[in-house]
Amino acid sequence: MTSESARSRQCRVAIAGFGTVGQSVAKILTSGVHAELTLTHVFNRNVASKRVDWTGPDVVWTESFDDLLAAEVDVVVELIGGTSPARDWIDRALLAGIPVVTANKQVIAQAGTELMSQARRHGTQLLFEAAVAGGIPIVRGMRDGVSGDRLTRVSGILNGTCNYILTSMEADGVSFEDALAEAQRLGYAEADPTADVEGFDAQAKLAILLAVGLRQVVTADDIPLASMTSVAAIDFAYARRLGCVIRQVAQAEVLDDGSVRASVRPSLVPEASPLARVDGSQNIVVVEGRYGGETAFSGYGAGGDPTAVAVVSDLVAVARGQAVAPTDLFPDKQRAARVVQGFEAGHYLRFTIADRPGIIAALAEVFSRHGVNVDAVLQEPGWSKTELPFVMTLETCGSMAVSAALGEIERFDFHVQAPVWLPILSDGEDGV
Amino acid sequence: MTSESARSRQCRVAIAGFGTVGQSVAKILTSGVHAELTLTHVFNRNVASKRVDWTGPDVVWTESFDDLLAAEVDVVVELIGGTSPARDWIDRALLAGIPVVTANKQVIAQAGTELMSQARRHGTQLLFEAAVAGGIPIVRGMRDGVSGDRLTRVSGILNGTCNYILTSMEADGVSFEDALAEAQRLGYAEADPTADVEGFDAQAKLAILLAVGLRQVVTADDIPLASMTSVAAIDFAYARRLGCVIRQVAQAEVLDDGSVRASVRPSLVPEASPLARVDGSQNIVVVEGRYGGETAFSGYGAGGDPTAVAVVSDLVAVARGQAVAPTDLFPDKQRAARVVQGFEAGHYLRFTIADRPGIIAALAEVFSRHGVNVDAVLQEPGWSKTELPFVMTLETCGSMAVSAALGEIERFDFHVQAPVWLPILSDGEDGV
Repeated sequence: MTSESARSRQCRVAIAGFGTVGQSVAKILTSGVHAELTLTHVFNRNVASKRVDWTGPDVVWTESFDDLLAAEVDVVVELIGGTSPARDWIDRALLAGIPVVTANKQVIAQAGTELMSQARRHGTQLLFEAAVAGGIPIVRGMRDGVSGDRLTRVSGILNGTCNYILTSMEADGVSFEDALAEAQRLGYAEADPTADVEGFDAQAKLAILLAVGLRQVVTADDIPLASMTSVAAIDFAYARRLGCVIRQVAQAEVLDDGSVRASVRPSLVPEASPLARVDGSQNIVVVEGRYGGETAFSGYGAGGDPTAVAVVSDLVAVARGQAVAPTDLFPDKQRAARVVQGFEAGHYLRFTIADRPGIIAALAEVFSRHGVNVDAVLQEPGWSKTELPFVMTLETCGSMAVSAALGEIERFDFHVQAPVWLPILSDGEDGV
Repeated sequence: MTSESARSRQCRVAIAGFGTVGQSVAKILTSGVHAELTLTHVFNRNVASKRVDWTGPDVVWTESFDDLLAAEVDVVVELIGGTSPARDWIDRALLAGIPVVTANKQVIAQAGTELMSQARRHGTQLLFEAAVAGGIPIVRGMRDGVSGDRLTRVSGILNGTCNYILTSMEADGVSFEDALAEAQRLGYAEADPTADVEGFDAQAKLAILLAVGLRQVVTADDIPLASMTSVAAIDFAYARRLGCVIRQVAQAEVLDDGSVRASVRPSLVPEASPLARVDGSQNIVVVEGRYGGETAFSGYGAGGDPTAVAVVSDLVAVARGQAVAPTDLFPDKQRAARVVQGFEAGHYLRFTIADRPGIIAALAEVFSRHGVNVDAVLQEPGWSKTELPFVMTLETCGSMAVSAALGEIERFDFHVQAPVWLPILSDGEDGV
């Protein structure tokens, strides 16, 4: 209970995976800023092609993970990414009683509980500050910073690629495709952007925030996703008329029965919301607690150096001997919490139609029959009647009713494109 | 280096000071959210008048601090406030080897180094998350969350009272006096607002951020202050024309020679800055590191429940046995760093004059002689020529030159009010 002051002693660090983040970690470790941390090993496939001289002559470069274990390093940094073989290597290091620091969101989202058990069994630890929101210390912020509270909701912008694309579309009025191409040119988006734009990346991160912050383990794949590829430049014009911007929002809350409501969706966010104020490739996480209200953490969610700061912060904790009980970090629950699929919100629907009389009436009749109230109908001028976009907003209601109504509406023959459906978050509903 | 999992065990908590925050702490402790924390003692003067029944029958209510020490509680929460006798009581608990959690910014700002030494000598710890920015976990965020970085700058809005007043003046166009009266009516401002509006409150908090984040101990009184009482409603109109809002900004950076530039001043802040986006009584802290860039923490900087969350988060750390080396929290420096008084920025000057020909020329001549370039002259219409406010902005330059020029300018006889001088922070200069 009291505290014998834990003092740092020299800590020998092995980096597994010498890509962008690995190189940034090595740069910080060799900068002299953290005298207690010494880089001793770098593991990578084809390590000869990775070898640099600025790490100094004493670093061992190896293609064998076993070398790291045999060398009895004090901590292994896993930056290989992907689930296999990364998970297996993390597992083996923990089995050898060696602490592991990782930036691997997939492994933690999928196997966090098992790996934490492994760490506990072998008296060691697994830290993963860098797995969510890059340089923003949200794992520690939730685990320690607001540990005095009981968190009830978390929401955020967890994918810098999507945020860059959406804020570019908003600022420059360009199409999704052009904004994506520009993001790829600048290195903000991968050649295959599927994981980002379909929401899988934010889904894994949200699962981790749920575990650490809301103390609920879920099967990450259960979190419903909506793609942002259907969002068009015109949606930003309509959003602006509604006092909103469009963001890929990840949000989760624990319901009274212990189930979880969670989703990753492009959403209309009020301009005054903290989520609306995150530009470019930045990230934000807003946590809401029973006592402390809303607390926001924002900064660089990706990039070699910011992500490396999160990794090195975990290394500093290991060197300081700041032991963290694995169950304080990740709840030890064998059964995943149920993820509720529906949600309550206002709704934005953009229809693109071949115009003729009676369309609004036909749509309104369907919504009415499903107990859904139309809030407003908006139409920007200057479009052809043969391919006319217009927007209906619906008052706050359950998504199941909207879904059922849209199932009927999609059978009408006036559609030129499939309707685009986005939730409208209110200040009370986006966790901010 | 490795980590025997530190497990929580039952932790007996004594609260010294049963005011707003103390009651909120007691409420959380008796809510069942933290089973490992048990409230056992409440100490207060005239404790009979404070006694409540909702804490349960087992709590000991006492007017004697010695009772807490004699009872060998596991941790003392100091919420008495002020420097005396609070500092002495903290000291005595540490001397007895009992960990102390405090929200006392004055004591930590003035005596942090000595009290940390005391904690170290007696193998215990002193935690103070609640002393800065209420429920925002900035102490832990800097100490652990971004410990992998080397922080170079910190800036923030640390006083919710001032921020409430300034954002009210901005939104409602009311005078400082009216906004202050409203803040007092709502309980956001004290009957004597001196500590808030003159900057003393933010000064103490900034000194703590300097120690924890920038690793520089300063004499808090050395940090230069500017009062916000000279800011008038018209300044917001001029600020808006310049794309800015007005905020009480606390900022600090470490210079290459180890000295510190720090200040607390009402300042013009660009509307796009995170500091501009903090409304009402909220707080924000932006830290800038060599590797991680800027990371922002925002939320409720005051209020019983948010501040209590910070206190209880510290208690959870004590109960978990998360030992923190006092020198990781507060640098052990015997000599205070030198605080540089001058600063580089753009400058906003509002003159209120009895109008006559030649005034602009006279002012421009003085500035020119001091090597200062006038950027713009702004004049809102509709004011009397006998009491005419207008604004000059100056290009980025050192404050000493401006100060010298103003020393001459104040001798002109056309002033109806003393000039109002505010720095204009650029995106590069406000740490954000």
